[in-house]
Amino acid sequence: MTSSTRLCLVAGTTGTANIDGLSAAGATPAAMRETPSADAELLCYGEPVRMGEMPVSPSGCPTPALFTRVARELVGFDVAVIDGGLAEPTAAPTVSVGAKPGGDIRERDPVPSGPGAFAAARQLGRQLPSTELLVAETIPGGTTTALGVLRALGEQGAVSSSLRENPIAHKREVVREGLAASGLEPGDAAGDPRRAVRRMGDPVLATAAGTALGAIETDTAVTLAGGSQLLAVAALLRHAGVEMPLDLATTPFVRADSSADLEELAADLDVSVSATDPAFPPEGHPALAAYVAGEAKGGVGFGGALELADRAGIPMARVRERAVSLYEEVQDA
Amino acid sequence: MTSSTRLCLVAGTTGTANIDGLSAAGATPAAMRETPSADAELLCYGEPVRMGEMPVSPSGCPTPALFTRVARELVGFDVAVIDGGLAEPTAAPTVSVGAKPGGDIRERDPVPSGPGAFAAARQLGRQLPSTELLVAETIPGGTTTALGVLRALGEQGAVSSSLRENPIAHKREVVREGLAASGLEPGDAAGDPRRAVRRMGDPVLATAAGTALGAIETDTAVTLAGGSQLLAVAALLRHAGVEMPLDLATTPFVRADSSADLEELAADLDVSVSATDPAFPPEGHPALAAYVAGEAKGGVGFGGALELADRAGIPMARVRERAVSLYEEVQDA
Repeated sequence: MTSSTRLCLVAGTTGTANIDGLSAAGATPAAMRETPSADAELLCYGEPVRMGEMPVSPSGCPTPALFTRVARELVGFDVAVIDGGLAEPTAAPTVSVGAKPGGDIRERDPVPSGPGAFAAARQLGRQLPSTELLVAETIPGGTTTALGVLRALGEQGAVSSSLRENPIAHKREVVREGLAASGLEPGDAAGDPRRAVRRMGDPVLATAAGTALGAIETDTAVTLAGGSQLLAVAALLRHAGVEMPLDLATTPFVRADSSADLEELAADLDVSVSATDPAFPPEGHPALAAYVAGEAKGGVGFGGALELADRAGIPMARVRERAVSLYEEVQDA
Repeated sequence: MTSSTRLCLVAGTTGTANIDGLSAAGATPAAMRETPSADAELLCYGEPVRMGEMPVSPSGCPTPALFTRVARELVGFDVAVIDGGLAEPTAAPTVSVGAKPGGDIRERDPVPSGPGAFAAARQLGRQLPSTELLVAETIPGGTTTALGVLRALGEQGAVSSSLRENPIAHKREVVREGLAASGLEPGDAAGDPRRAVRRMGDPVLATAAGTALGAIETDTAVTLAGGSQLLAVAALLRHAGVEMPLDLATTPFVRADSSADLEELAADLDVSVSATDPAFPPEGHPALAAYVAGEAKGGVGFGGALELADRAGIPMARVRERAVSLYEEVQDA
């Protein structure tokens, strides 16, 4: 077989996103339900298809799917979207592993489909023929569920945010309520990743961890393409017994988020972090400047896609130019 | 938007394939259930993934998906697989339009999901951003259901076969039984494509016709990439009121099938037929020679993919060489 690189985007939802003030992954709370479906369409088709609009934050910052799509156009890597619990039908082709939309982690059993999705995704990860796999996510509210999983596993550290000001105290309170509802103390799910993700996580984390585990078990090179949520995936892999080195490809915007301290958590989990800088100008096009100002920061494999573009010798100026032109095309459509 | 060509493979099943002796789209009747799922995997990944093996006929002739995959590798066109009623979960990403596996057309109401799938696929066809769409199919037993639809619509003409000897008398008998079970005389569903496909067709025909209709309505260039089954789609489009010219891209093996007389039916339906010749040597590799001997003949967009390769200036010798090497790789895997 010839070598091939594939980005697996795991797209899904959690009821945790309905809690006010946790996420900027949608213009309104109602729009957040559609964000993962629309992100998948943007990645696969270059524009929203069944979904009416490109996802934006309440302030208008465009979804990072825009940049991942641009990198894909320029580099030509393969893509597979895995349904990690979508709430709205997407026109993007998706692989099913049985994941269903997740509930609010303040419920006792928010992700009953998690263990089954983990197992089916693991089998899929074992079977996918690519020689290199990037695992990415799109799920509004996902940093809160990532924090929930980290606490259930007994890992310390904070998580990043799609909001400019990280509502980390609010996330911690939600996680405390979730642990109480699940009858768990921090660390009670150490060594039991299925329990951690079912009680305190979301279906995307379950699916992403399963996919990565299966790929690792069959000697596929795996890159965790994301920030805090993919570090939670790394934690799930460590608690599943994975001991080999793990690589995280993120953005400089996530890495610079002092409220999250990604590097410290990564060091605890023995994960190497890289971040390719797209050199967005702070005074440039608003779609780029919003990232420099700390909005959105990452997601949808943005950091991993930049790394693939850089490795393919694509100048970052081309990524920036095409991102602006695609943004304008989609806005005008 | 930049121009783009996409092959939409509609993949599904019909209980009609369980009737002995109608189809060669699988090594055994049980394997035929898996053929569309495996064809989709071959197209998307270059090898079977969740499915254990590459589909072959009882005599070992490989699925035409092999050649469509090769053309895709060489040309780089986009692909979307639409779930037209799959019976086995596939690792290929698929778009859902609500189609369910079809029943045996000798039942009264074999395709209750047909009208809904037609409507959802039509909407999808309207929304897909490609500037050119090739519509293709994979469904064992599909030429018999194609004949059923043609008769229900009142169209004359025969259909081709994946078997070297077309069991056309058997197909006609099955269609007679089906019409009787549905309380229909030939032509009773003229002008009513939804009824024809629900009572005498299969979910792939419903989905393919809907996709093509939606694309045509939004001025996307549509090519029907196939043989008799895509001519049945053309008939459904004509009975839905489509009057514009329609193009069918098939293989020389389908066109040469005297038992089907594709050209006459195409002329009746005002469909232009083209066939790109891959020049398979009759004494060459068995995987190619089987086609020259009249097995399989087409399907999975084989003819359309050859046309795209030819238009892109890919020499047919490269298609043949890569097809043989991919065949050997998949057999050895």
